[in-house]
Amino acid sequence: MKRIAVVMGSPTDLPVVEQALDVLREYDLSFDVRVLSAHRTPRAAQEFAVYAREEGFGAIIAVAGKAAHLAGAIAANTTLPVIGLPVRSSELDGIDALLSTVQMPPGIPVATVAINGGTNAALLAIQILAVEDGDLAERLRQAREATGRNMAEQDIEIRRKYSR
Amino acid sequence: MKRIAVVMGSPTDLPVVEQALDVLREYDLSFDVRVLSAHRTPRAAQEFAVYAREEGFGAIIAVAGKAAHLAGAIAANTTLPVIGLPVRSSELDGIDALLSTVQMPPGIPVATVAINGGTNAALLAIQILAVEDGDLAERLRQAREATGRNMAEQDIEIRRKYSR
Amino acid sequence: MKRIAVVMGSPTDLPVVEQALDVLREYDLSFDVRVLSAHRTPRAAQEFAVYAREEGFGAIIAVAGKAAHLAGAIAANTTLPVIGLPVRSSELDGIDALLSTVQMPPGIPVATVAINGGTNAALLAIQILAVEDGDLAERLRQAREATGRNMAEQDIEIRRKYSR
Amino acid sequence: MKRIAVVMGSPTDLPVVEQALDVLREYDLSFDVRVLSAHRTPRAAQEFAVYAREEGFGAIIAVAGKAAHLAGAIAANTTLPVIGLPVRSSELDGIDALLSTVQMPPGIPVATVAINGGTNAALLAIQILAVEDGDLAERLRQAREATGRNMAEQDIEIRRKYSR
Amino acid sequence: MKRIAVVMGSPTDLPVVEQALDVLREYDLSFDVRVLSAHRTPRAAQEFAVYAREEGFGAIIAVAGKAAHLAGAIAANTTLPVIGLPVRSSELDGIDALLSTVQMPPGIPVATVAINGGTNAALLAIQILAVEDGDLAERLRQAREATGRNMAEQDIEIRRKYSR
Amino acid sequence: MKRIAVVMGSPTDLPVVEQALDVLREYDLSFDVRVLSAHRTPRAAQEFAVYAREEGFGAIIAVAGKAAHLAGAIAANTTLPVIGLPVRSSELDGIDALLSTVQMPPGIPVATVAINGGTNAALLAIQILAVEDGDLAERLRQAREATGRNMAEQDIEIRRKYSR
Amino acid sequence: MKRIAVVMGSPTDLPVVEQALDVLREYDLSFDVRVLSAHRTPRAAQEFAVYAREEGFGAIIAVAGKAAHLAGAIAANTTLPVIGLPVRSSELDGIDALLSTVQMPPGIPVATVAINGGTNAALLAIQILAVEDGDLAERLRQAREATGRNMAEQDIEIRRKYSR
Amino acid sequence: MKRIAVVMGSPTDLPVVEQALDVLREYDLSFDVRVLSAHRTPRAAQEFAVYAREEGFGAIIAVAGKAAHLAGAIAANTTLPVIGLPVRSSELDGIDALLSTVQMPPGIPVATVAINGGTNAALLAIQILAVEDGDLAERLRQAREATGRNMAEQDIEIRRKYSR
Repeated sequence: MKRIAVVMGSPTDLPVVEQALDVLREYDLSFDVRVLSAHRTPRAAQEFAVYAREEGFGAIIAVAGKAAHLAGAIAANTTLPVIGLPVRSSELDGIDALLSTVQMPPGIPVATVAINGGTNAALLAIQILAVEDGDLAERLRQAREATGRNMAEQDIEIRRKYSR
Repeated sequence: MKRIAVVMGSPTDLPVVEQALDVLREYDLSFDVRVLSAHRTPRAAQEFAVYAREEGFGAIIAVAGKAAHLAGAIAANTTLPVIGLPVRSSELDGIDALLSTVQMPPGIPVATVAINGGTNAALLAIQILAVEDGDLAERLRQAREATGRNMAEQDIEIRRKYSR
Repeated sequence: MKRIAVVMGSPTDLPVVEQALDVLREYDLSFDVRVLSAHRTPRAAQEFAVYAREEGFGAIIAVAGKAAHLAGAIAANTTLPVIGLPVRSSELDGIDALLSTVQMPPGIPVATVAINGGTNAALLAIQILAVEDGDLAERLRQAREATGRNMAEQDIEIRRKYSR
Repeated sequence: MKRIAVVMGSPTDLPVVEQALDVLREYDLSFDVRVLSAHRTPRAAQEFAVYAREEGFGAIIAVAGKAAHLAGAIAANTTLPVIGLPVRSSELDGIDALLSTVQMPPGIPVATVAINGGTNAALLAIQILAVEDGDLAERLRQAREATGRNMAEQDIEIRRKYSR
Repeated sequence: MKRIAVVMGSPTDLPVVEQALDVLREYDLSFDVRVLSAHRTPRAAQEFAVYAREEGFGAIIAVAGKAAHLAGAIAANTTLPVIGLPVRSSELDGIDALLSTVQMPPGIPVATVAINGGTNAALLAIQILAVEDGDLAERLRQAREATGRNMAEQDIEIRRKYSR
Repeated sequence: MKRIAVVMGSPTDLPVVEQALDVLREYDLSFDVRVLSAHRTPRAAQEFAVYAREEGFGAIIAVAGKAAHLAGAIAANTTLPVIGLPVRSSELDGIDALLSTVQMPPGIPVATVAINGGTNAALLAIQILAVEDGDLAERLRQAREATGRNMAEQDIEIRRKYSR
Repeated sequence: MKRIAVVMGSPTDLPVVEQALDVLREYDLSFDVRVLSAHRTPRAAQEFAVYAREEGFGAIIAVAGKAAHLAGAIAANTTLPVIGLPVRSSELDGIDALLSTVQMPPGIPVATVAINGGTNAALLAIQILAVEDGDLAERLRQAREATGRNMAEQDIEIRRKYSR
Repeated sequence: MKRIAVVMGSPTDLPVVEQALDVLREYDLSFDVRVLSAHRTPRAAQEFAVYAREEGFGAIIAVAGKAAHLAGAIAANTTLPVIGLPVRSSELDGIDALLSTVQMPPGIPVATVAINGGTNAALLAIQILAVEDGDLAERLRQAREATGRNMAEQDIEIRRKYSR
């Protein structure tokens, strides 16, 4: 199966990256975690992107804050789907990272998720791999069902406790 | 090959949808175009999403403006990748549609592209199908190269004309 | 008398929900408290909304954060007044929840109150029930008067203490 | 049946008010249209609000732009539900009117709809009257169904025309 | 000499009000401090404003947060200069209070100062009284000079300590 | 009587300045109109401010767009009340001018009015002069009354035309 | 003398670029104009930046809109001063381009000017070259003086025409 | 070699200034640190700017928060490059300081860096001095390389620890 790459622009992004890794581990997927900066190691980032497809990756999660160029810089060098995960790491609540990630010009898309949305970045990567993988799709479906059941239980409990 | 679904919340979104269709036609892909509203035809939207995978879709582009719930409403009912395309259709320049689309809670990702970014929504859908399709990936790569060559020519021309 | 439903998208919204429940208890009203997610249990949310009127509800308070679709998803399935209570639960101070709740497209209104405005969501629900209930209206009026008297006392106290 | 009041802060708000009136006429409701300003005729606005309930109104739509105080000023003087309709009439796209209308302090709720959302303001008022009026509720339901059917037809047409 | 009124919408605004009072005390001015709410005690606020000029006030500082209508509500009922002091008391960093205070419609100005700018609200009130009061103007000038000297000393100290 | 100064940062601000001049002419006041830039003619701006009081001015209206420093630069050099009138002259709808004008540091207040609020800037200047001038205050009061009567007539007309 | 490079991300940025070129021509400087995209021709952009210093450039103006990564991508590959000129080319008034340009992470500065601020980008580049070039500095000073004189004339003219 | 000036609007800006000084010390540069306020000591700020070039400065870093006029006020009085460093010191996360600094009118550029971006302000100043100083340029290049190597090591470490 295709592997997933998780690339962060700075080691300080690790707490958000960890959310994503937890999901990938839960699905028992194989993944590579990298520190590559669009600004501080631009060539390493470029090289990673250029060879990502032939190295067996199927989706790339790019994690960055502030003027978050990492997802765009990687997307510019691969035709694999790149998932942009904007991080709140500045004074501006992450809105700078969100706009820097999502407002890409025509030709180079970045699949952007919520600010600090590590869980969803990983789920989106898995959904992409699951397009052609029935087993993985079935496991995603089951996880959704489990979440649904869990919420239904919380619904019952809270309904009992608070309604009157 | 998997097909792509393009779902808009209102026929008034057609100009942005057309950008996406142009790209899909260019790649000679098979696609379905629908008008389904999270608010005005919620059950039709739900039913579409529930059966999207077994109907052969590989990616869904959801196009909506204002409090843009369509992408989220579809994503809640399928584990296929859902691409959210926020449309500028209100007084607020599309920032409402962007936030309503991208800020999804953990568990239900939406792959969001730029406001009115019809071209990139389509390209992202194609990139997703191309993860397991070497031919399609090759065509994406060639298109990128062509774009690069085209820009290089513009660079030469403008450089000649304006430098001194 | 019609009952009031308070529906939250996640149990983490409980602190804001509690503000609303305090008001409903103060007025000795009958209410139902639910956990229903537009994204994680979309069908339960839909079913709740479809039957809300015949189950005797007169107003529904929908509480959600981030890309807050809950109020809209419920409003899409009932013609009862739906009060949207946006919650600050993301990195963006609740502005995402506010815009996702208030900027509804024509046809499906949501009566939106302030971010984290639990008290006012409950009061608005009561005001809606009081349109046809003179006793309830009278109690609202008395509470307003009591608030006014209380502020007048604070005015006197602070005026004495600080003026010179 | 209770009547609906539509109050605007300035005659320049008429285009947005007209949207609301069209809906009220469609439902053949009785309504009163007023020009009352929180700032230029504060006492007339206050007096209107104080007597609104005994004059037979069941809901009040307050329409204003910029530092839109009208809805709050009316809500402060009545316990009827007040629907705030923020208007885009300044240099700031209506975000000033939205925040001035929706961010009410605890105790005085305003049911806020989208910027320039005249249609929804009227529908919300009707929904409030319909809480205790089965006929009106039924007409709202039928209108929803008609809208749904209309969208379903557009779905069929666009699906045929664009899919391939 | 004319007196200054400091009116707050809620006793929770006292910390910001205190900043203003400190300045007024420093200038040994006579002032009145009130708790008057545009929403909870609208008539008391109105009455205060209507009689403010004949009660000897020369400027009114109105302090409020969220959908801050207090300054506008007072300005609507007097032709005295009203200074609007927006307070950060919501989830939105005070931008709601700022826009609700400053974006007044033509005809009813509010002299708005910075969010939580208690010191400047008081200084502006004093500057207004000093237009026709040479002594007060002279004291303002001397205070400015003292501030300038104080900064010049800090400049010398920091310049010595850090330059190299 | 004290005169009013209207200072603009650029001749392109004239349309907004004209609104203010219309009001000043209506009240038959004496005023001086200047083009002084905090950035392009900083010394002339400073000199103007330093001598403004002794030249007989009672209030200064400072009009500027973008990073609007003019009001602050003048306020830094006089203890007269300075009214900041932010102008929409950039790509950002005037929010840059508003924040640059209103968010002054403690010690140097600027009395800020709405973006492009020329009418209110002039009225505020007149209100400041009217603090010690009963006649002017009376004329302001009469103008308010006239505005109120005018709105009351519009209320009657629109009420007749649209109510049913 | 060092040359100036003006690099735009797309030929559609030419109108803003022209503003900059007009200034450079006025100062009779030598400059190179390029079309290089961080996303569409990333390697050409990189190569340009890597060799910019040895090719005799002294400052680089990078012009881009939306998720404007160009300035950052160039700054990552040179230690020459890079001036970021954000362009309004999206639905969001250029605030996306501004934040994407200015909010750079520590280590890689971009000297950002106003949205669409072509004139100032060029002047800043000239000021940088003028640090070690007394003649150029003198010409900048003279231009400032000329601007000041021009404004002083406008001041006289407008003062005469409008004051009374 | 030219010296660098670091000017802050208030001693409370010292924590951000310290970031800049750390970098300047690392490069063993000579610098002057000043406290000069556009509003509280406008003439000292002006005088500093007027003589900055002849006093041997090559670049000026101006540090200020809120309605941050300092960089503009200095830039108005010198043709040296002025680096604007907006500080988060208000209720608004520094967006007020950013816009007040970057949105300068044509003619007077300010080279703006990120909110609280002390490190980059210093690096930008050094890059400006390095335009004509090969040694300094070489040291900047080496520091970049060291940063790159450091990140490459973190990449290796994190890749080993987290990949699977």
